[in-house]
Amino acid sequence: MARERRRRSRNGQSDRTDNHIPQLPWRMIRNPNKPYELFDEDQIDAIHKTSMRILSELGLRVMGDNVLDLFEQAGAKVDRSEKTVRIDEDLVNDALATVPSSFTLTPRNGDKKISLGGDHMVFGLVAGPPNVHDRVNGRRSGNYQDYVNFTKLAHHFNAIHMIGNQVCAPIEMPANSRHLDTYNANITYSDLAFHVTAIGRGRALDGINMMAISRGISVEDMKTDPGVITIISVNSPRLLDDAMADGLITMAEHGQPCSITPFTLMGAMTPVTLPAALAQQNAEALFGVVLTQLVNPGAPVMYGSFTSNVDMRSGAPAFGTPENTKANIVGGQLARRYGIPYRTSNANASNCVDLQAAYETGNATWGAVLGGANIIYHAAGWLEGGLTASYEKLVLDVEILQQMMEFMTPVKFDEDELAFEAMKQVPSGGHFFGIDHTMQRYENAFYRPMLSDWTNYENWELAGAKDALTRATEIWQKALVEYEQPALDPAIREELDAYMAKRREEIGDGEP
Amino acid sequence: MARERRRRSRNGQSDRTDNHIPQLPWRMIRNPNKPYELFDEDQIDAIHKTSMRILSELGLRVMGDNVLDLFEQAGAKVDRSEKTVRIDEDLVNDALATVPSSFTLTPRNGDKKISLGGDHMVFGLVAGPPNVHDRVNGRRSGNYQDYVNFTKLAHHFNAIHMIGNQVCAPIEMPANSRHLDTYNANITYSDLAFHVTAIGRGRALDGINMMAISRGISVEDMKTDPGVITIISVNSPRLLDDAMADGLITMAEHGQPCSITPFTLMGAMTPVTLPAALAQQNAEALFGVVLTQLVNPGAPVMYGSFTSNVDMRSGAPAFGTPENTKANIVGGQLARRYGIPYRTSNANASNCVDLQAAYETGNATWGAVLGGANIIYHAAGWLEGGLTASYEKLVLDVEILQQMMEFMTPVKFDEDELAFEAMKQVPSGGHFFGIDHTMQRYENAFYRPMLSDWTNYENWELAGAKDALTRATEIWQKALVEYEQPALDPAIREELDAYMAKRREEIGDGEP
Repeated sequence: MARERRRRSRNGQSDRTDNHIPQLPWRMIRNPNKPYELFDEDQIDAIHKTSMRILSELGLRVMGDNVLDLFEQAGAKVDRSEKTVRIDEDLVNDALATVPSSFTLTPRNGDKKISLGGDHMVFGLVAGPPNVHDRVNGRRSGNYQDYVNFTKLAHHFNAIHMIGNQVCAPIEMPANSRHLDTYNANITYSDLAFHVTAIGRGRALDGINMMAISRGISVEDMKTDPGVITIISVNSPRLLDDAMADGLITMAEHGQPCSITPFTLMGAMTPVTLPAALAQQNAEALFGVVLTQLVNPGAPVMYGSFTSNVDMRSGAPAFGTPENTKANIVGGQLARRYGIPYRTSNANASNCVDLQAAYETGNATWGAVLGGANIIYHAAGWLEGGLTASYEKLVLDVEILQQMMEFMTPVKFDEDELAFEAMKQVPSGGHFFGIDHTMQRYENAFYRPMLSDWTNYENWELAGAKDALTRATEIWQKALVEYEQPALDPAIREELDAYMAKRREEIGDGEP
Repeated sequence: MARERRRRSRNGQSDRTDNHIPQLPWRMIRNPNKPYELFDEDQIDAIHKTSMRILSELGLRVMGDNVLDLFEQAGAKVDRSEKTVRIDEDLVNDALATVPSSFTLTPRNGDKKISLGGDHMVFGLVAGPPNVHDRVNGRRSGNYQDYVNFTKLAHHFNAIHMIGNQVCAPIEMPANSRHLDTYNANITYSDLAFHVTAIGRGRALDGINMMAISRGISVEDMKTDPGVITIISVNSPRLLDDAMADGLITMAEHGQPCSITPFTLMGAMTPVTLPAALAQQNAEALFGVVLTQLVNPGAPVMYGSFTSNVDMRSGAPAFGTPENTKANIVGGQLARRYGIPYRTSNANASNCVDLQAAYETGNATWGAVLGGANIIYHAAGWLEGGLTASYEKLVLDVEILQQMMEFMTPVKFDEDELAFEAMKQVPSGGHFFGIDHTMQRYENAFYRPMLSDWTNYENWELAGAKDALTRATEIWQKALVEYEQPALDPAIREELDAYMAKRREEIGDGEP
């Protein structure tokens, strides 16, 4: 039923009669245009060489004997007293030889399978904010009801392909088991692929298990047909902590992808200069990539770029800046050099959903598209430098993403589209509104936005002079009404419940 | 003095002490990146061929015997009863052989000379709206005081390189002579190049004469060193009206550039399909280009693209859409094919300065930059599909333009910027705030925005929780206080006054 209603709303005509929020149909996106090249080959090579020096001369500090063992066995130089791993280019090249250049994520609804790599592009829901905001209820701490609402919105808006774990933290729930509740919400209120928390082994395993149950397959089957993904942050500069390493190892062992993303804010966690920041990002990302391949050669993995700058007056992080946009582009040049699928973001640092939020997000999104990103994380709903998940921002972002999808849709091009015969029919100074060529195409000729209002000033004023932010509030409220929960096999429901009950008992007061 | 204060504010350090609006210094922009190619060579060729058929088989209707004569003398097929001119590809090629691939505009301040062509990029103030809006005084009809204020803002903000004529129409002044007042305001309150109104011969000539006086040179001297520009709109489909043709001829005779810009809104003035719209745009633009070269071989001229779509439900124009962004890019591919400097716009259709205004303008600006535009017209202050000049929108646009300027600034790249030695100094998990490499660079390492606020939520709330729109209002108010009028030689002042007095007498109650 949900599916049917959505399908009807894809048709221009019925849109106008059934009054649903107009949106583009669910589909995988391809970015058909040649990625932008901001740096030339020599510059990319210089970044590569510097990153190899970082890996072989400075190395990364790793908090975990299991990781030190893995690297030592592979021939890396391991300093046990300093817990430092130094690796040379050969080891990197060995790893790159087994990294898949693309992979898929299959959620419980096979129609919502997503591809990561090549010219594919995926948009993910915001992940991780401690707070939530909407203009009706104000700013508050993350909680389960808002978590569910965001999951419903991600399911409802076709431009969102994947759920970030803990779109907001449900802080009223026990910290050691709330990941079960959020995975359960992902599976219950949506049928999309999702991100699991890989802070330690237990949380990652629970995500893998619950995705397998929801798909009705075994964890073993999922090893070659992954369904969840995670982000492994490198604690820049050059530190991979225990929990992250365990999460990485767990995911790789099970054939589930990690996006290795160094937290490289220029001026704070890296030098202030972009070439240096990208060299450091490159070294740290490749270090994680190598680790995945040591654990499980052929395990899917992504090259993550989060390089942006800080405000040097306050140290506050900034996003969607010219520097961030450039980093998004060059990050793609580097990822493609190694043949690794590319992850980046379209973040912003505004404290409210305003002009700044729009232009910062817009610039970062252009950087991601020009950079040939395979996934844009936090693509919908990110506000306040990631401290708040915003309902209105999610609507703004879906509009920005849909416009980008349309931009990336190749233009149909043939004699009919060149329309010389149609032009013959219209005299100079005339108009094309009524001619056959127009009538046959007008319903779907142009992208129809959900947030933009193109009425003239007088009509706009008569209708209440609502700005786009006011309309965004109306749209998410309407989306929650339109939302329909995707069906879930009762046997799977039961198995999930049993799994969670068992795990809650096992976890008790301890760590998962 | 104004110059001195502005120069001080370019320095990061003094910015922090003198509390001026931070902004980038005045400079000519170069767009160093290879323009985007959305259509392949065959598609560009197909558009070209279709446009040649439009020119040779359908032709353009021209309302003026002088124009018919010019084309007839050049060998075009002229149908006097239908007032239609049909031209073949040879005539187009003859004209293209004399079109300059770049030119300059020199205003009364030689330091503010601008280059149009090659990889140069120029940003122009909004031109033409009948209305004005700011959040303090609301929406009102265009008037002289607002005209002066916008001119002051264009002078004050270094990102604006050129003044569009009649940024708003001063409707309290007589329609037949208000162009004298607006040219005078341009020259009095700024020292920038400006756009003249070329609706008929008189208004264009007055602009040329007054620019020459302000520069202390003759109109004859200005023939090879132009100082003003205009837009010649083609009344699409395929109609060049009398006043526009006279304006074009006047400008070309005097060696002043026209931007030939067909008004090609898809679905209304062209077929609904992008290839057709671009073919029609191409035919109409080239028609105007040919006319300039028939009048004066070698006269500077620009290829104008304004192709966007309409809302097919209402017929209302839309801007900053995916279709408009694509047209901005392909327009550049076409202009470069012919070696003609390229003009486009970054318009939007929002009724207020909101999220929509920001993302539509952002998308169109990216289209212009990726398309290799040599000038973005209406780059600052355009609102409501061009019906309103907005103070807050101007501030938003200056921020968007400055960020784009920074995006187009090549990244410094050498061993110092790769900073391996600096990385050696910071232990894993440490930070780069205090090291020498950072301290030597931090003041100017990153672009400093004038509108964005990166403080954390708590401090932002304590400071009044001002969104970017509220801050934009404060910024234009502050800019009008900071503004300092550029000096004008009293002898030139006198000559201008005498010229205007004489012309007012000549014009009387008639047409200029």
